[in-house]
Amino acid sequence: MLEISIQSRRRTELIEISSRVEEAVRRLGRHDGSVTVYVPHTTAGILINENADPDVAADIEAALDRLVPWHGPYRHGEGNAAAHVKASLVGSSVRVLVRDGKLALGTWQGIFFCEFDGPRRRRVWIA
Amino acid sequence: MLEISIQSRRRTELIEISSRVEEAVRRLGRHDGSVTVYVPHTTAGILINENADPDVAADIEAALDRLVPWHGPYRHGEGNAAAHVKASLVGSSVRVLVRDGKLALGTWQGIFFCEFDGPRRRRVWIA
Amino acid sequence: MLEISIQSRRRTELIEISSRVEEAVRRLGRHDGSVTVYVPHTTAGILINENADPDVAADIEAALDRLVPWHGPYRHGEGNAAAHVKASLVGSSVRVLVRDGKLALGTWQGIFFCEFDGPRRRRVWIA
Repeated sequence: MLEISIQSRRRTELIEISSRVEEAVRRLGRHDGSVTVYVPHTTAGILINENADPDVAADIEAALDRLVPWHGPYRHGEGNAAAHVKASLVGSSVRVLVRDGKLALGTWQGIFFCEFDGPRRRRVWIA
Repeated sequence: MLEISIQSRRRTELIEISSRVEEAVRRLGRHDGSVTVYVPHTTAGILINENADPDVAADIEAALDRLVPWHGPYRHGEGNAAAHVKASLVGSSVRVLVRDGKLALGTWQGIFFCEFDGPRRRRVWIA
Repeated sequence: MLEISIQSRRRTELIEISSRVEEAVRRLGRHDGSVTVYVPHTTAGILINENADPDVAADIEAALDRLVPWHGPYRHGEGNAAAHVKASLVGSSVRVLVRDGKLALGTWQGIFFCEFDGPRRRRVWIA
């Protein structure tokens, strides 16, 4: 298992980490099969989507903000309940196939760490 | 593959099963790697989120109820279409890393079985 | 890794692919363990839900359309931002257990490819 570190800059922020995951796959010596990319946080998630046009990530951030408003009728006292809900919807891990030591992603796909309660220093585990 | 049994008490209910999953990992003899926790139902799901403050689980339950109202314009005749939609959003499995025979979860993370059409007796598969 | 090809007919369309995934598992020679079913697209996803009553798939399609309207305040110039958001919510892969060379699905479960920007020719990877 390898860990990578991420520094988010905004409250809601999709950060592409594909090349860092691929570097981890190389260091793990994984040649073929698959890899799990896991977020050990409860107010952040991970997803795979388009990395060509940055407007797509901005649209995903905004759509999640509309679906789960920051100020809602929440009980959790820390004020970041919306971030927990968004993390639950997006999920805590993705699975990516590996071929010849490289990530087998679709043409337009990238792996995005999803910050929902930033800015913070975060970790991602690759195994 | 091991199966655990769960009895839900409410229609929508997040039930933490981390310690039961860890016990299954021990019985499977899994020492390092990862484990899949799978829900073989179509009106229940599974997610990973905070287990320290029970208000977080209550907020996730309520937010999903707001996003997918029980009484909507649904076709499905059994009256539980909302539960199918919520299960689709949350997902049917999670992947958890295992180190030294223990679940490698983040500090605040727990694994929650998500009942969306309870109360019912349910099963979870661990492999 | 095996690839299957899918032709969608509508913009939003859940297409059951369980039997094709099971055939791929046979061709892969997978006898026990698990299999990853991966969608290499950014405007399509994959989920597991009920395959007995087709109204359930129709309800999931309609509920996702209500949650993420096609015409929203999106930036992405191609006009299919909603499809990217839905793919992010549903996810790009599912994990299914395999026992005795067959998919270990729950009684009512099927695997559905989720088209969110069809009609198109699509691919699914099984590994």
